Amino acid sequence: MEAGGSVAGGGARVSAPAPAGARGAPPTEDRPIVVKVGGAEGVDLDAVATDVAELWVEGRRVVLVHGGSAETNRIAEALGHPPRFVTSPSGHVSRYTDRATLEVFEMVYAGKVNKGLVERLQRRGAPAVGLSGLDGRLFEGRHKRSVRSVEGGKTIVLHGDHTGTVDRVNVHLLLLLLGHGYLPVLTPPGASEEGVAINVDGDRAAAAVAVALGAEALLLLSNVPGLLARFPDPSSLIDHVPAADVRRFLDVAEGRMKKKVLGAAEAVAGGVRRVVLGDARTATPVRDALGGRGTVVA
Amino acid sequence: MEAGGSVAGGGARVSAPAPAGARGAPPTEDRPIVVKVGGAEGVDLDAVATDVAELWVEGRRVVLVHGGSAETNRIAEALGHPPRFVTSPSGHVSRYTDRATLEVFEMVYAGKVNKGLVERLQRRGAPAVGLSGLDGRLFEGRHKRSVRSVEGGKTIVLHGDHTGTVDRVNVHLLLLLLGHGYLPVLTPPGASEEGVAINVDGDRAAAAVAVALGAEALLLLSNVPGLLARFPDPSSLIDHVPAADVRRFLDVAEGRMKKKVLGAAEAVAGGVRRVVLGDARTATPVRDALGGRGTVVA
Repeated sequence: MEAGGSVAGGGARVSAPAPAGARGAPPTEDRPIVVKVGGAEGVDLDAVATDVAELWVEGRRVVLVHGGSAETNRIAEALGHPPRFVTSPSGHVSRYTDRATLEVFEMVYAGKVNKGLVERLQRRGAPAVGLSGLDGRLFEGRHKRSVRSVEGGKTIVLHGDHTGTVDRVNVHLLLLLLGHGYLPVLTPPGASEEGVAINVDGDRAAAAVAVALGAEALLLLSNVPGLLARFPDPSSLIDHVPAADVRRFLDVAEGRMKKKVLGAAEAVAGGVRRVVLGDARTATPVRDALGGRGTVVA
Repeated sequence: MEAGGSVAGGGARVSAPAPAGARGAPPTEDRPIVVKVGGAEGVDLDAVATDVAELWVEGRRVVLVHGGSAETNRIAEALGHPPRFVTSPSGHVSRYTDRATLEVFEMVYAGKVNKGLVERLQRRGAPAVGLSGLDGRLFEGRHKRSVRSVEGGKTIVLHGDHTGTVDRVNVHLLLLLLGHGYLPVLTPPGASEEGVAINVDGDRAAAAVAVALGAEALLLLSNVPGLLARFPDPSSLIDHVPAADVRRFLDVAEGRMKKKVLGAAEAVAGGVRRVVLGDARTATPVRDALGGRGTVVA
């Protein structure tokens, strides 16, 4: 993971414990928090916005990253272009993003959900600025044009896919906004090296942002209490995962949680001291996660 | 029209002819051009993006503002919430924007069209950043909550309207982006003083941006050749309107052109030296308008 652009301050990456203020990094409390809220059913965007705005007004720097998957599926269905999910030979399930799907994706993620969050934050006094990963190539990476799909026991290749990875974060643009008092609200898609829109994973994009900004913490909030030893039993919550061991927990994670554990692993490997996999359905989801409720990776 | 935020340079408003470089303003060629492209059928967004990207790469500073009305109508129909237009007692036709319409509006304007233009510009080498008027309250104004509508000879009042005016432009954020090499791509909605999303007129928003930035020129491009004396006869194009007389031409303008003439009047009154009402259906629409093709208000 590489931080692109010129780093104008505050973007130092800490890959080993260091005293606050060392190596040019600001003191811990000035390091931003990166909050990712998923787009699954049940997440409370009003509660997330209330917490984020309050933290901002209290003087914390926050970057909010969000998804929009459930709403994208609903709108795509309504427009007569239902979502298509593919299963790779290794068993990984992902959205097949042809051009028409990408446009619905942009409408929901960068339009409805992003501007809905920006509006909620503005109404609560936080000067939010909403951007997709295309804008200023905030999330830049490789375009994967085809995907292998196992269908009826056979593996077929689907072309025209618009997915990719986040290999670089435009930390220059993020620091420009943060440094001038704006709260960035970020969402997929990203941009390929050729400038083409690509569907990128929001959790891993948030992890890349946290690494690039040297974030104090990364909070990955969704519609489950955290990492569960016996999904979906909430009493099986794993409350702590040692940072060095996080990849071992990839096998424990079910479905969407796999990407969150992967994001957590990438964040701690990149110097983020604490990742919390938390619940976005509570009354104060950001404060709860910041206080350690959920699965703490540290 | 007031320019909000602190003006960090280059944002001086020139309300009377002044030599280039006077009153703290940059030389003419460094003053930005504001290009507005409408969302009506027939406009060529590829051609607009090609021209804008080329001008940018040549060293011109450009701000692009866009609409999305025709596509909004299509998506709203497809989602089972067809557009509703109301006629005011004075004969003015406008879109009634209830909350559901506003969300479709945001999907199309801030999602599909905005990110589509950002992608086109990125692919052509211009570092575009797409924002709505909600973001950083770029377009801020008053929220009009109800609208009078003449229906069947009677005037009724419709509540729950989300429309408004652009009274302030966040010139601080625009100059921050322009000053650091980013090309702003702007779109309605705007934000009310309470932070609520409001549907604002794109032509008048573009005029407000041009005034706030002290733009060299404002180009208002749509799917007609310019202001026509006998609409829709293209041979009746009015090629020049003296700036002092522009409001007299409000009676000549038909339909959507009225807002463009009003925007032109507001721009020249605010110190913009030249407004061109041009055609967005040609191969080089921005260069054509910049070269004086269309109706020049100066």
